[in-house]
Amino acid sequence: MSNAIRILGLDPGLRRTGWGVVAVEGARLSHVAHGVIAPRETLPFAERLLALFEGIGAVIEAHAPHEAAVEETFVTANGSSTLKLGHARAAAMIAPARAGLPVAEYAAKVVKKAVVGTGGADKTQVAFMIARLLPTAGGATADAADALAVAIAHAHARKARHLGSAA
Amino acid sequence: MSNAIRILGLDPGLRRTGWGVVAVEGARLSHVAHGVIAPRETLPFAERLLALFEGIGAVIEAHAPHEAAVEETFVTANGSSTLKLGHARAAAMIAPARAGLPVAEYAAKVVKKAVVGTGGADKTQVAFMIARLLPTAGGATADAADALAVAIAHAHARKARHLGSAA
Repeated sequence: MSNAIRILGLDPGLRRTGWGVVAVEGARLSHVAHGVIAPRETLPFAERLLALFEGIGAVIEAHAPHEAAVEETFVTANGSSTLKLGHARAAAMIAPARAGLPVAEYAAKVVKKAVVGTGGADKTQVAFMIARLLPTAGGATADAADALAVAIAHAHARKARHLGSAA
Repeated sequence: MSNAIRILGLDPGLRRTGWGVVAVEGARLSHVAHGVIAPRETLPFAERLLALFEGIGAVIEAHAPHEAAVEETFVTANGSSTLKLGHARAAAMIAPARAGLPVAEYAAKVVKKAVVGTGGADKTQVAFMIARLLPTAGGATADAADALAVAIAHAHARKARHLGSAA
């Protein structure tokens, strides 16, 4: 396991932020851990963001990932939702950046393509494939499955980059 | 100065985040410090957010404010700008929350009304009144002047709350 790279995938949301850690060693991908951070909704807004930030910080401390990856957010017609998601996403990105991890970003389409094979897959298909690819990730909720999918997308992308640079 | 309350005002932006600290003692308002945090635009996105977060953390360490206030963001038709502003605003809010400061939020209209007397004032009028209200805040750029204005709005609001609860 000494050469394994651990990747933290993040699916940010103000109410629920999914996280998942996978290990990559050559072509082998394995599940390390996953979970969801759900700050109490009665907290003042700044403290909800702080809870996300500290929750992800605790995950990083517990699982010592080497790199992080986060889903790119698509801008919706609802400006107020977009704004809230931007806040949550920043909380999710600052925590790994502060721990010195590079933070990669992937469009949802790229994540789905990496896991299911098509960019148009729905959440159920993603969760199904996560259960197939990472058998020990049983019981991952949709948010955690999405986070594991982001980590897998990053594992593929970094491998492609690595092979590319070696060519 | 032992009874003075120091307030940190924040005007968040990804390219430039203005900050200003004022001290309030009874009806007396005085300027403590102000500045702008402008992360290098060539940094990866997560590191720009980290630079904002750490910059504000350094301001808090240097000036030991007791409370923080941040301008509420209005949602624009440009979803992509809204999203970026949400990220910057979260970086600005998590730093004081992490330092244990309560973080109040004020609509731009309320801030302008507190400083200029009308919610429809423009940036020039805000900067002009900041120079009048805080003579030692000379040379504050528009971003820093806006941040000082947010701090003043909070000083007014907390005083009004205080008088209200004493009645």
